[in-house]
Amino acid sequence: MNKEIVLEKLAGGGITAVQGISAAAVNCGLKKEKDDLALVYSESAAAAAGLFTRNLVQAAPVQLCREVIANPVQAVVVNSGNANACTGAVGLENARKMAAAAAGALGLSPEQVLVCSTGVIGQQLPVEQVTAGLVRAAGSLSTEGSAGRRAAEAILTTDRTTKEAAYRGYYRGVPFHLAGMAKGSGMICPDMATMLAFLYTDLRASRALLQRLLREAVERSFNLITIDGDTSTNDTVLALANGAAPLEEVVEGSELAKALAEMLVELCQELAYQIVSDGEGATKVITLTVQGAPDAVAARILARAVLNSPLVKTAFYGEDANWGRIMAALGYAGVAFDPGKVDIFLGPLQVAAGGGAVDFSESEARTILQSREIAVRVALNAGPASLTAWGTDLSHEYVSINSHYRS
Amino acid sequence: MNKEIVLEKLAGGGITAVQGISAAAVNCGLKKEKDDLALVYSESAAAAAGLFTRNLVQAAPVQLCREVIANPVQAVVVNSGNANACTGAVGLENARKMAAAAAGALGLSPEQVLVCSTGVIGQQLPVEQVTAGLVRAAGSLSTEGSAGRRAAEAILTTDRTTKEAAYRGYYRGVPFHLAGMAKGSGMICPDMATMLAFLYTDLRASRALLQRLLREAVERSFNLITIDGDTSTNDTVLALANGAAPLEEVVEGSELAKALAEMLVELCQELAYQIVSDGEGATKVITLTVQGAPDAVAARILARAVLNSPLVKTAFYGEDANWGRIMAALGYAGVAFDPGKVDIFLGPLQVAAGGGAVDFSESEARTILQSREIAVRVALNAGPASLTAWGTDLSHEYVSINSHYRS
Repeated sequence: MNKEIVLEKLAGGGITAVQGISAAAVNCGLKKEKDDLALVYSESAAAAAGLFTRNLVQAAPVQLCREVIANPVQAVVVNSGNANACTGAVGLENARKMAAAAAGALGLSPEQVLVCSTGVIGQQLPVEQVTAGLVRAAGSLSTEGSAGRRAAEAILTTDRTTKEAAYRGYYRGVPFHLAGMAKGSGMICPDMATMLAFLYTDLRASRALLQRLLREAVERSFNLITIDGDTSTNDTVLALANGAAPLEEVVEGSELAKALAEMLVELCQELAYQIVSDGEGATKVITLTVQGAPDAVAARILARAVLNSPLVKTAFYGEDANWGRIMAALGYAGVAFDPGKVDIFLGPLQVAAGGGAVDFSESEARTILQSREIAVRVALNAGPASLTAWGTDLSHEYVSINSHYRS
Repeated sequence: MNKEIVLEKLAGGGITAVQGISAAAVNCGLKKEKDDLALVYSESAAAAAGLFTRNLVQAAPVQLCREVIANPVQAVVVNSGNANACTGAVGLENARKMAAAAAGALGLSPEQVLVCSTGVIGQQLPVEQVTAGLVRAAGSLSTEGSAGRRAAEAILTTDRTTKEAAYRGYYRGVPFHLAGMAKGSGMICPDMATMLAFLYTDLRASRALLQRLLREAVERSFNLITIDGDTSTNDTVLALANGAAPLEEVVEGSELAKALAEMLVELCQELAYQIVSDGEGATKVITLTVQGAPDAVAARILARAVLNSPLVKTAFYGEDANWGRIMAALGYAGVAFDPGKVDIFLGPLQVAAGGGAVDFSESEARTILQSREIAVRVALNAGPASLTAWGTDLSHEYVSINSHYRS
């Protein structure tokens, strides 16, 4: 990092740390009592970049975002409690009504508003409640940190904790910011941006540059986490750059571009880790490093096979050093390697060598497995590629949460 | 079916229903008290066909079976409690010692003995215990049904029930048989023959014909079931034809070949269904029919995505008519279709039409979902291919069983 630029993480910070960003949250009746509708407003028009679910079944708001995102954007609307997915033409019309209501209340045109939804699939939104809620939200926008926090709470579904992070940089002494909020704790799989995340910066950047930096950061963060291997119909990551900081535009190849790229990776990895930590029913976070894979694609496939295996995940839940299940998952991933060369480590403890058993201390293994954060390292000795990905265990609580979500 | 041939299912029958087949089981100390070692003997040499795991990590007995299976075979040895997988050169040597011990006790050569193992991965077998057990087993071989039943019990691991089925046919009044036993309740995924199954017939057939018929039957049975999406290192399906029935050889294109093909499909589907019914922690059996898929491969991929989705599986456990999760799973399967044309049915009850909600009776849905066997039908309206596959729900009990399997 160039010395002209200094970066710091803001403890407890959220999206309103970014200059020109205000937020509000209300309850509009989708949930019983909790806030279920967030509105985030940018004083100035922002370049917007986005990544969306690769699921063939795309929720109405995802379809609308894809239309709108090429425009400069000033507001983002998010409701929880209803995904507005599998809702057909009526659903798309409802998403448009949400954009129109927010635009009307804020003096914008509907093409400047992005809409996201998360929650139950297949039910129509009670759209009048939502649009009435948006009018109320527009009247209570605030740049306070508490307003950003409330917005971060309003976008949650089965999540237990809010996911926020904020960073400040100084370029030649002038401060600028990058901050974000996210939701997600189930239906998480690294096929894509697997949740909702909203990232803001007060730097000025072109949409094209922002999109490239966002894609790279997501590839190294949200696309490397998995909770249950399910891929949602609503996944969306949005990044908005509103230029509120009194700095020159961030251009390709500049020091500022490098700083923004680095901050984006850090923010996305931070939010991704928060999502995994709050994985449905998760009692453990598994940080899996695959080393010595034939290539990066192979490393990713292998990491996913291990982190998605119900048998591996239940073994971690049971704090059982059952490395044979890791070997089995690697073996069925569909990647060529020599099983006889695989070494497996739990933290610093080697539990398998050359694809077979080694003597290790079960008590030492148990101590490692009892901690909430477990580092697993698989050395394939089959090539130059390495990768770190994150996942969770599979607990009784996961089953409880998901067996009665809709009702 | 030609009238010259009559087929019937033998209630309560197992492998010893087949002429010339005797069985025995003993405890050799791999499990605390239960039988853990099965020996099945054929009076005459049998043509043997086999299908093995496609997992890159192949257990030692799988490697040995692949070597031996081209020979006429007279004995099959199976131990439970230890998979002899990820055990390197010592493991392969131990598998050979098992074959040699059985051969010695039965007056055969080791090349006439197939060996299978199932259980924990990554531990060396206490091979002297096993070979001593084989000598005892050889001394207690019996053609009684109870002996077949004991063998079927001895090959189980986390299974709660034995899996057996037997069929009798008459060709011009002469009886012949096909019977089998299987184990499997976790690490089940339709990538391949995903468990152990041992099929016997007293018909005479060439190895080539038997192999073709076995492959076709497995494709329509064991390869269409999934419990947890994990693929074992030890999966093996063996079919032995010993010619003990006083009938002409079964040749390609004959009536007998058609009868054997039909019986094999029926036997494999019966055993596959028994495996799914006994799926780890399963409280429901889901029979999923995918209709109107673009082609057979697509139908299979879609069925697997739905039946492997933890969110779909937990919804069934919770008896929740959450069809949106089925839509989401179809959508991320990686197959092209129009989500706006998908209809979904639970039993006779339509719960989604044109990819969206329809009004349906929640109480009727609940009644359907409360039964142990649930038929789900997904009509894609995207092509001519249809397929039925079988899976289970995901319960608290699955997590309990698998979190402490090794210890």
